[in-house]
Amino acid sequence: MGSTIGDIGEFGLIARVTARFPQTENVIIGPGDDAAVVRAADGRVVATTDLLVEGQHFRREWSGGRDVGHKAAAQNLADVAAMGARPTALLVGLAAPPDLATAWTDALSDGLNAECALAGAAVAGGDVVRSGTLTIAVTALGDLEGRAPVRRDGARPGDVVAVCGTLGRSAAGLALLRAGADGPAECLAAHRRPRPPYAEGPRAAELGATAMLDVSDGLVQDLGHVAAASGVSVALRTGALPADPVLDEAVRVLAELGAGPARPAEYMLAGGEDHALAATFPAETGLPTGWTEIGVVTEGDGVTVDGAAPVRGGWSHFG
Amino acid sequence: MGSTIGDIGEFGLIARVTARFPQTENVIIGPGDDAAVVRAADGRVVATTDLLVEGQHFRREWSGGRDVGHKAAAQNLADVAAMGARPTALLVGLAAPPDLATAWTDALSDGLNAECALAGAAVAGGDVVRSGTLTIAVTALGDLEGRAPVRRDGARPGDVVAVCGTLGRSAAGLALLRAGADGPAECLAAHRRPRPPYAEGPRAAELGATAMLDVSDGLVQDLGHVAAASGVSVALRTGALPADPVLDEAVRVLAELGAGPARPAEYMLAGGEDHALAATFPAETGLPTGWTEIGVVTEGDGVTVDGAAPVRGGWSHFG
Repeated sequence: MGSTIGDIGEFGLIARVTARFPQTENVIIGPGDDAAVVRAADGRVVATTDLLVEGQHFRREWSGGRDVGHKAAAQNLADVAAMGARPTALLVGLAAPPDLATAWTDALSDGLNAECALAGAAVAGGDVVRSGTLTIAVTALGDLEGRAPVRRDGARPGDVVAVCGTLGRSAAGLALLRAGADGPAECLAAHRRPRPPYAEGPRAAELGATAMLDVSDGLVQDLGHVAAASGVSVALRTGALPADPVLDEAVRVLAELGAGPARPAEYMLAGGEDHALAATFPAETGLPTGWTEIGVVTEGDGVTVDGAAPVRGGWSHFG
Repeated sequence: MGSTIGDIGEFGLIARVTARFPQTENVIIGPGDDAAVVRAADGRVVATTDLLVEGQHFRREWSGGRDVGHKAAAQNLADVAAMGARPTALLVGLAAPPDLATAWTDALSDGLNAECALAGAAVAGGDVVRSGTLTIAVTALGDLEGRAPVRRDGARPGDVVAVCGTLGRSAAGLALLRAGADGPAECLAAHRRPRPPYAEGPRAAELGATAMLDVSDGLVQDLGHVAAASGVSVALRTGALPADPVLDEAVRVLAELGAGPARPAEYMLAGGEDHALAATFPAETGLPTGWTEIGVVTEGDGVTVDGAAPVRGGWSHFG
């Protein structure tokens, strides 16, 4: 039998976990002191925090420790990128039952590290405590490198709406896991380890994006926040959504199983957790490779899809 | 009956809570976007995170929402101060059951705000999710204002050891609550709402403190981290510990109830969570008002009390 975190104790766990964290030049003081010290050369720091709770945001039977580490890091690092900033560091709080295997926390650490490496960040500190509910609290920090932060309230009528990254694959992957299907593998992987396009956040900011966010609750719901904050309407065209043969195949498998909506567009519009970036740009902007124009900003309010107000997409954590 | 957070939903709760957060000049972008933007004029940011779990770190029957907000903020803000930095902002993650009363989250917000105000900080962002276990994840940020961070590894033989803030009151308060006693009120208050001496962290850094930390697990255990990191021994004298008539009275009450150690010094040496600051200074340093010299740094390792190695104090979260 392997050891548990109860066997090695709080300080043993801290030593074991922090030994796995490589440091970077952005981390001036890493784990082991009262607090970390992280470079913030811009004179401002971007900071965001999210909690992942077992049973709500992941299931250990569907996602390994490494998957959970990737996902916990990704959803916070994507929030940093969505402000137009480059991620620098992560702080990680772990609340866990004493019988949790150290092999699982090792894998969690490796997943956090690997995802950080994709974004140019490093784990700079954290906390471990006992809890009956396995919970991971991640805070990500980032550097604007002199750029203005891209908020949600800057979209203007005439702007184009564009996305970068996959849409709907994570939601389809979750539906496949619920239905007991073992493929398409890319959709299962997208649910376990989203792949946000980190570098595109700063790039969109440099190109003059007027508003931006990462798609975490669903494209329609999240763009609804942009519409509300900016005092505009967002008009999406399903025909413009990026073609995705992997998602098409997943939807075909789900249809055969009698599980889930029949149209890929429904996953793309309502599915969250891929952590794609959605942004608005002035009409004259030449969109770079990787970005797809999916609609326009108009006078009005709310989000329309092919001219009609959509059925409310996404989901609320309490409602 | 009052409303619950399940009644108002995730976005209702976010709107309700963030409406209670006053902003400060350090918060450039506050709650409501993908991430906060916080001033970090120094070009470095101090960052620390802690989790508080119901049943482990607080009990709702002993501490109100406002108390828990004060405590959650205080223990993180104290970590920032212990690096020699001035706190600027807090990020707060709340994982809670849907039947939690909005009156409780309102009180939590008010406690967070009030404690931030004592330290010059403000709540800049956060997250709310559903969980069966009430959990609060707090991240605090701070500004070094050009000072070098004060670490744990700089204590040198010949340095004096000093503390600022109360010692042992929180532990005595917890023992009183466990014993069902309703006083002394100052000790119950110290357990519910510790009062770290925030401004003394930057002041100690300016005075040339060679090592510093906040006392969270117990004075002997925490100074053991300084000894280990610095490669020195810390020699404490119980006769030098600051006199505290309030603690003396609490210990007298506890002795009458047959609960807890009989000597105030034991609470001062082993009790954590007052979040006093402990620091080492070059011998020639004139200690300011509020700091009490309690020992010296010598060659060797570990912590001694009146010349003897102490029974292991403090506690571990898993062991």
